[in-house]
Formats: sequence, C-alpha cells, structure tokens
Amino acid sequence: MKIAILVLLGWTLCWGQANECKPSSLNIPGAPYPCVYPDHRVAFRVDAPDARKVQVRLGGAHDMTRGADGLWTVTIPAQVVGFHYYSIAVDGSVMADPATRTFFGSGWDNSGIEIPAPDADFYAPKDVPHGDVRMRSYYSKVTGTWRRAYVYTPPDYESNARGRYPVLYLLHGWGENEQGWQAQGHVDLIMDNLIAEKKAKPMIIVMENLNAVRPGQDASLYAGRGATTRPVGAPAPAPAGPGGAGGRGGFPSNWDKTFTDMMFTDLIPMVERTYRALPGRENRAMAGLSMGGMQSFLTVLPNLDKFAYLGGFSGNSGGGGAGFDPKTSGGGVFADSAAFNKKMKLLFLGIGSVEGPNTKNFSEQLTKAGIQNVYFESPGTAHEWLTWRRCMLDFAPRLFK
Amino acid sequence: MKIAILVLLGWTLCWGQANECKPSSLNIPGAPYPCVYPDHRVAFRVDAPDARKVQVRLGGAHDMTRGADGLWTVTIPAQVVGFHYYSIAVDGSVMADPATRTFFGSGWDNSGIEIPAPDADFYAPKDVPHGDVRMRSYYSKVTGTWRRAYVYTPPDYESNARGRYPVLYLLHGWGENEQGWQAQGHVDLIMDNLIAEKKAKPMIIVMENLNAVRPGQDASLYAGRGATTRPVGAPAPAPAGPGGAGGRGGFPSNWDKTFTDMMFTDLIPMVERTYRALPGRENRAMAGLSMGGMQSFLTVLPNLDKFAYLGGFSGNSGGGGAGFDPKTSGGGVFADSAAFNKKMKLLFLGIGSVEGPNTKNFSEQLTKAGIQNVYFESPGTAHEWLTWRRCMLDFAPRLFK
Repeated sequence: MKIAILVLLGWTLCWGQANECKPSSLNIPGAPYPCVYPDHRVAFRVDAPDARKVQVRLGGAHDMTRGADGLWTVTIPAQVVGFHYYSIAVDGSVMADPATRTFFGSGWDNSGIEIPAPDADFYAPKDVPHGDVRMRSYYSKVTGTWRRAYVYTPPDYESNARGRYPVLYLLHGWGENEQGWQAQGHVDLIMDNLIAEKKAKPMIIVMENLNAVRPGQDASLYAGRGATTRPVGAPAPAPAGPGGAGGRGGFPSNWDKTFTDMMFTDLIPMVERTYRALPGRENRAMAGLSMGGMQSFLTVLPNLDKFAYLGGFSGNSGGGGAGFDPKTSGGGVFADSAAFNKKMKLLFLGIGSVEGPNTKNFSEQLTKAGIQNVYFESPGTAHEWLTWRRCMLDFAPRLFK
Repeated sequence: MKIAILVLLGWTLCWGQANECKPSSLNIPGAPYPCVYPDHRVAFRVDAPDARKVQVRLGGAHDMTRGADGLWTVTIPAQVVGFHYYSIAVDGSVMADPATRTFFGSGWDNSGIEIPAPDADFYAPKDVPHGDVRMRSYYSKVTGTWRRAYVYTPPDYESNARGRYPVLYLLHGWGENEQGWQAQGHVDLIMDNLIAEKKAKPMIIVMENLNAVRPGQDASLYAGRGATTRPVGAPAPAPAGPGGAGGRGGFPSNWDKTFTDMMFTDLIPMVERTYRALPGRENRAMAGLSMGGMQSFLTVLPNLDKFAYLGGFSGNSGGGGAGFDPKTSGGGVFADSAAFNKKMKLLFLGIGSVEGPNTKNFSEQLTKAGIQNVYFESPGTAHEWLTWRRCMLDFAPRLFK
C-alpha cells in the first residue's frame, strides 16, 4: 500500500511537471499568469471582482469564468509560436492585462504574450558581444516636431573607434512605432548573434516611427484608441495598393511621401552627422514589415540613387502581383530589368506561410519580368512578429556584401 | 443686434479657448483624453459600455458618470504639477487607461499623466546637442540572469572619440525599473540642457534595475500585479529603516546587498569595459530616489574607496534623523567627520516640500555632527517625479567638480 502510494505520488509529480505551465516571458516580475503550457495552450487570470463578463481577446474572444475567489480564469486552445498582442475586455471595456508588460501596436499599449518557438535560439541573449540600442532625439523640419529614432550600433562600434558602418533603415507596421523592432522583434539580439557567427556584417540599424504628419495636419496615422467611441476590434487593414486611391481610408493624404521627405530632409542627415555611417547608396538599405514594407518600396523604388538594398516583410508595393505590369509598375522602374538588376543589389520579399499567396505571386511576376529577387517564407506563421524576426534572420546576412 | 451677436460670439470663442483643455502629452497618438485644463483640472473618458461602476484612480478614486453615448467621463479637481501615475477601475478591475502610454511603477505598466509645470523648460527638448540613452544587455553572475542597463552618453561622446567621462549610477524607486529615469524623469533632456548651458560636466549616467535577486530566490522585489488576488491600492511603503529589521516586509532577504554585490561584480566592470569611463572613486557618483536613494546610501557609505559623490532624492538611510548617532549610524562612517568630509565630495539630500520633515531633520543632524551636506527642497511637490527631476537639476551641476 505504502509503495503503491509512493508510486502514485511519483507518477503524479512527473505528470504534473510535464504538464505544468510556465509564466510567459513577457509577464511583469512575479506574475504567474498568463501561463503557457508545453502544448502551447495558455491560462489567463484576471482580477475583476464586480464584473459580469470578462474576456481574453487573442485572435477571437475567449470568455473567462468567475471562480469562488472572485478571480476570472480561462485556458485557451494552443497558440501559434511567437509573439502575440492581446487584451482583456471587462464588461466591454478593452484594456491591457496588468499582468504583462505592454507593447505598442494598433496605436496603443497592448498586452503581449510569447509562445516559445522551436527556433527561438536565434533571438536569445547569448554570451557574445552585444551592441546597443540607442534612443536618439532629433528635430524634424518636415513634421515640425521633435522625433525619436531607435539606433542599433553593432558590438564593435565602441572598440573600433574609427570604424564606419553601412546603415539599414528598418520600419515597423501599422499602429506600431520605433520601439517595435527592439521590444517585439529582438532585432538587437538577432544581429548580435548573426554578427558573432560572422553571418552578417556589422551595421547600424535605424528604426523610426512611420507616424509622420506635416504641421497643421491634425490627423494621426493611427486612429488612437482613446479617440474611438467603441472598443477597437481588429486593427485597421494595412494599405493594400501601391499608391493613389484605395486602401488608405482615414490616413492623412500623402502619408508615405511625408515620411520619405522626412527621411531625406531630417533623418538620414541626422544619422550621417551623428554616427559613423558609411555614405552612399551601396551602404544604405531600407526594409520594413507590413505597412513599413510598403513604405520602404515607395521610398526606395523612386530613389535608386540613394539605396541599393530593399526588403518588404509581409508588405510591399506589389499589390499581390495581380495588376503587375513590368513597363509601368513601380513608376516604370522595372521596365529595364538589366538596368534595375545592376543597381538593386537585393530585392527581398518575405512572408508568413499562413498569409496567402500574394507575395509569392509578386515575386514570380518579378522573376518572369527578369527582375532578380529573393522570396522567403516563414513556415507556419501569420502576420505577426515571429514571421518578421525570421525575415530579418534571412535578410540581414544578404546585406552589404 | 448683429454687432451684439458678433461681440457675444467673439467673447464666447475667447472664453472657450482660455478654458479649453489640452490632451496630456503622454496620450497615445490621436487620443483627446485625458485632457488637462489651464487650471490643472483633468477630464478623463473611458469606453466601458457594459460596466456598472468606473473610476479613475489618481490619488483617490474618482467615480465616472455614464453618458448617453455609453462613454464614461469625469473631470477631477486641479492636480499638482508634474507626472502622476494613475489607473482605471472597471467594475473593480484595476487596469491602465488605454488612452495613454504606460509607465512602469508599483511593479506594473500604469497609465501616466503630465500636468504642465511652470518650470517645465528645464526638461523640455531644445535645439541643443543631444546625448543618447542606450539599452545595454549584459549577463550578471550574481543574479544568474541577463540584465539590462539604460546608459546615457553625453552629446559630445561621439565626436570626442578619445574622451573619457565620469559616471553617475542613478536609481529609480520601489516598483519602478531601469526605464524610469528616461521615460518618467527625462534625465536625458535635463542633462542635455545643463551641459549645453555649461552648468553640468558631460558625464555617463548608468540606470539599472533595483530588482536583483540571487539564483533560486524566487521572490521578486516587486509584488507583481498579476500575483495579487485583489487590486493593488497604494504602492507598498518604501523601506524606512537604514538596515536590519523593519520596513522590509515581503522583500527577499539582503535585497540591498544583492544589488550592491551585483554592481561591484557585474555592472561597474561591464560599464568600465564597454564605455569610455574614467576610473576611480573621484569619477564615480551614486544616487537614487526613494528606495533607490536608500540603496545608494547602503552601497556607498561602506564603500567610500569606490565613490566620492552620493545623493538621495526622497530617500536615504537616515531614518528621518530621529535615531541618528554620529558614532554608530551608517556603520560608524560619520564618527570622524573631518575624515568623512575629506573623502565625500558631495552628500546630497533632496525632498519634496510636501513629503514631511524627515529628510530636513536628517540633514540638520548631519550638520550638527559636522558632516557637510546639501539639503534641497522641491517646492509644492510630493513623492513624485517632478520632485526628482528638480533634485537632478540641482544635483548634477555639483558632480565631478
């Protein structure tokens, strides 16, 4: 009997451990929930003693159940690996879960959860030399405001005091800001690890905020959660077309041109004045995700004298390749494929495999028109940060070679 | 009649403008609320369509009123100038207001509001050379974890490639983290402005996280909002005593010694290896606010061979001066006042005028014992960030002279 109990106890402990959940790495210190199970189900807990209905909003809405202790709980089905934004709705009021750090997306500070990915090693902190991510304030004449860039300088930037470095301008997506690539994307760790393995060249990475409007233009590029009269459900769709009408409902006019103008007038001169940046087109790259990918295409394609590398991660100006005409698309820049290939050292198109065939179609149309390009697909991921971390892992080693 | 209407219209417009509220500078892009009136009343608006009770928690709890449109509003009485944390309670669930950026305090990401201060100019962004605030990852052997420091490098750090700089180690308060001095304190702007006016020496400022525990010590220094079973009301009181028992309920044992050990073993060596820091005690200062002030005293007083400057902003190890004994207090470091005064180039005690007489009493006890010290009082402010910004404004010019 004693032995049977001990065996049962041992089995229970073993079973319990294998099935125990672990607090998400994005939780505030000491918070046991959200808690991620080995099979990627997630348990949430919310303190809402007087509420009648509480939901977790992650993908869809998941009803929570009130316990005898007044705490609401729910365990939601297995989630895709990587980073997800989520929020809590308490009697219809959509707010961030106080148990996690917040992350700026859809124009406000959401909660975030990280489901451990099998390939998480490439963005893990390791015992390798580390670069800095710097917050840099500067004044923009184009927007008439003080702005902030995040600037990654590589590990040897300090010790190599005369070294000069090529520069990648790297953009976030709709509703995010200059913090995204560091906080959600771990771009600093991705680069530290790639550089340590000699897979990528040391480079400066400049991350700025797409939300640039001219003085007097009161419209923010983001709706502003506080400005809405009802909870924001899904984020507004990213703009779909390469320019002109369509897909930009509610955006200030010429939003992309304001950002491009701000880059050339204010940002690039500030960067090249402040940091040891190598000058010239062959030392400049631009890339972005989603709306930031579209912005990159709209900035670079008409300015091939200024950039030699271009990347779009789950976003570009291709419009899915459907209406692609090599003679006129991209302002005619693809018409002479030999000239284009000579100038553009890398045209990179990345996408999550769950996001649909548009980017692949565009890549194939480009190839058919004789335009060299790299197509990269992140297996099993959607329009989310793990797709873009993986894009960066594939993209960065191809730069400045 | 026409004239009367125009006069009335003109007067109304004028009256309307003078009394119009302005969105808080900490709101998310496009959010009209919270909105600050010229007399420092604040209007809040929260979207909670199905809630029965909604409150703003800023100081006390302020009941909101449900409008016909389903939005809850309240205008609260005039607030003290400066930065305040606040939160929203929806049917008893305490969360951040989605209309503002969040700020880490009391162990979680609170909402923040900024009431314009008459002296706000000293932390305003200006057309002067700017330094960087860098995020730096490093591994701590003492805590067995990857940690992050925020490091301010002064404006001429890049151009003066051989220059070496003295270092101030600067700490936040209980429940905050390494982000506080930049995000809530604007220390970078304060320093940029002081350095531009030649009022402070260019220096490196290292900001780290007080929350340091040894491996296997599962206790976080912060309760963790997500770990509580009921909403956290007021933050836990900052520890009051200079050491030993009392005032540290719930903290891991030797919390201050773990941090000190981490500083000497990991942080200072990393800083002096990575940045162009001047070595030696006369080039090292340490200061902090509230619990961080206490930590600074507990680190520096037994280690005068390593530091020559010490500051406590609304926090120190003086215990209000009541039990002060020059022979034994601070481990006996004050017993030989001449020797102490010769070693310690600056002993700075700052406080908000609303915080009570404890710090002034301690300063007077020190003076009576022959210990040179500087007492600074921020007029009209309490245990909040404007007090500490003003402390920094007075403290920084006294360093490294």
